[in-house]
Amino acid sequence: MLYFIGLGLADERDITVAGLEIVRRAERVYLESYTSLLLVPQTTLETFYNRPIILADRELVESASTTILADAATTDIAFLVVGDPFGATTHTDLLLRAREQNIPTRTIHNASIMNAIGACGLQLYNFGQTVSMVFFTDNWRPESWYEKVKQNADIGLHTLVLLDIKVKEQDWDAIARGAKGAKQYKPPRFMTVAECASQMVEVAERRKKEEGEETCYDGDSLAVGVARLGSKEQKIVAGRLSELVDVDMGKPLHSLVLMGKRVHELEIDFVREFAVDKESFDESVKKGGYGTTA
Amino acid sequence: MLYFIGLGLADERDITVAGLEIVRRAERVYLESYTSLLLVPQTTLETFYNRPIILADRELVESASTTILADAATTDIAFLVVGDPFGATTHTDLLLRAREQNIPTRTIHNASIMNAIGACGLQLYNFGQTVSMVFFTDNWRPESWYEKVKQNADIGLHTLVLLDIKVKEQDWDAIARGAKGAKQYKPPRFMTVAECASQMVEVAERRKKEEGEETCYDGDSLAVGVARLGSKEQKIVAGRLSELVDVDMGKPLHSLVLMGKRVHELEIDFVREFAVDKESFDESVKKGGYGTTA
Repeated sequence: MLYFIGLGLADERDITVAGLEIVRRAERVYLESYTSLLLVPQTTLETFYNRPIILADRELVESASTTILADAATTDIAFLVVGDPFGATTHTDLLLRAREQNIPTRTIHNASIMNAIGACGLQLYNFGQTVSMVFFTDNWRPESWYEKVKQNADIGLHTLVLLDIKVKEQDWDAIARGAKGAKQYKPPRFMTVAECASQMVEVAERRKKEEGEETCYDGDSLAVGVARLGSKEQKIVAGRLSELVDVDMGKPLHSLVLMGKRVHELEIDFVREFAVDKESFDESVKKGGYGTTA
Repeated sequence: MLYFIGLGLADERDITVAGLEIVRRAERVYLESYTSLLLVPQTTLETFYNRPIILADRELVESASTTILADAATTDIAFLVVGDPFGATTHTDLLLRAREQNIPTRTIHNASIMNAIGACGLQLYNFGQTVSMVFFTDNWRPESWYEKVKQNADIGLHTLVLLDIKVKEQDWDAIARGAKGAKQYKPPRFMTVAECASQMVEVAERRKKEEGEETCYDGDSLAVGVARLGSKEQKIVAGRLSELVDVDMGKPLHSLVLMGKRVHELEIDFVREFAVDKESFDESVKKGGYGTTA
């Protein structure tokens, strides 16, 4: 049996009891290591599970999935995924390959940012589609997410923005110098709430200025930044995008929610507690017409 | 400290290791018992946790929250919620009351239908807002959910439909006969995928016929029914709404997803495996133009 096991959000104790039982008895234990990261190192997991873990990077999962699936028809293989296993398409692909080979599979679900974001006080059923924000570079500043944010905003919904994670990013300078193995890669990078807010404001301003567009949000729009959700060091901050640009949320992982206008009074009350500046928050709620749409 | 602890979806082993540790040491353990249900009885939880559980119905949480919060500033109180704690507004309310009294709180997240639904093969980031479907009665057949389904459908997104649960429903006949205590209530009722599909088809037909509306879906639209998600007895069935009307998904809990047209090929491949009738499914994909929108 191939088990897809969600690890939840923060540390080694966020695995479920059912998940832990499987990890402890499985023949091989893989940890998917490129779509997200736990807030503790691999060794902490290995000590707690009392099992060695094989790190499964994108290459291994996509090109050598036969290695992962070997013997899975007759023994138990655990494939660990941070959050819930079905956040990312790649695992779907592995599941479909297992199915083709008639390998039975089972999923042990867990919390992921997609549902735990409710902790920020905005109700899950008021969220529209989720978007991803990548690191802008000098010549690649994609705005494809904007249309989706606009579709959500047009019907008053919140948008969860998932922030870029660069793991195993190739370091072309080092490679040119002849670097091999781990040295070919840059250290991991995680987008911060401030970086995301800044990119969002930049895009809105560009569209206004260069295209005369009436954008679906601007620097005055309200948003909520979350960091290390689900951990003891969780931090939640609410404010205008222009305020979040200057907020230091500390260590990864970060996410951001752009508030929709069809927000309930109870949601506003809850989020207000996290405001950078409560007066500015109240003013933005009023000026922006938050909570007045049915 | 007041701990909100998610129990996940299916049975006593779906609690996280962190959650279990808190339950075992908490002064009092409450189980929220009216927005959702686990698939195992309370006694199974009590045996596994080795702790007595106080059932917290809506009344207790809403009117007697001081009982729940008593001593929470100095001792540990565990408030257990099926799924993740922030699926329902009522828990938000309890959290806000705790805050007012300066009681520290922490949330132990877990899987809920809102993220585990990804197991049906439809990608979470392609879902729009979530809607709820209540049991229609002779004189109450609300259609307020339809507008939200339409908003999602208009931009090609999937809609998760959460199905009605009637727990502690007052039995007016029994009350009239002088029933007291537990006898005042009807046995719990859970809406099935078939009932939901049937109500959805009815509403589309009514709107077509009585209002000449070009509805955003009809009996030929594709949907996915899930039952007992996350448990070993999980069942997933895909097909036209008109097909799902006749499908018996077995014991609770059930949910339904109405497929959006902006569906990825990989999602279609995945969902197809669950089709009641693969030929009919392929035909519906083609005729309905699923996956052709960008």
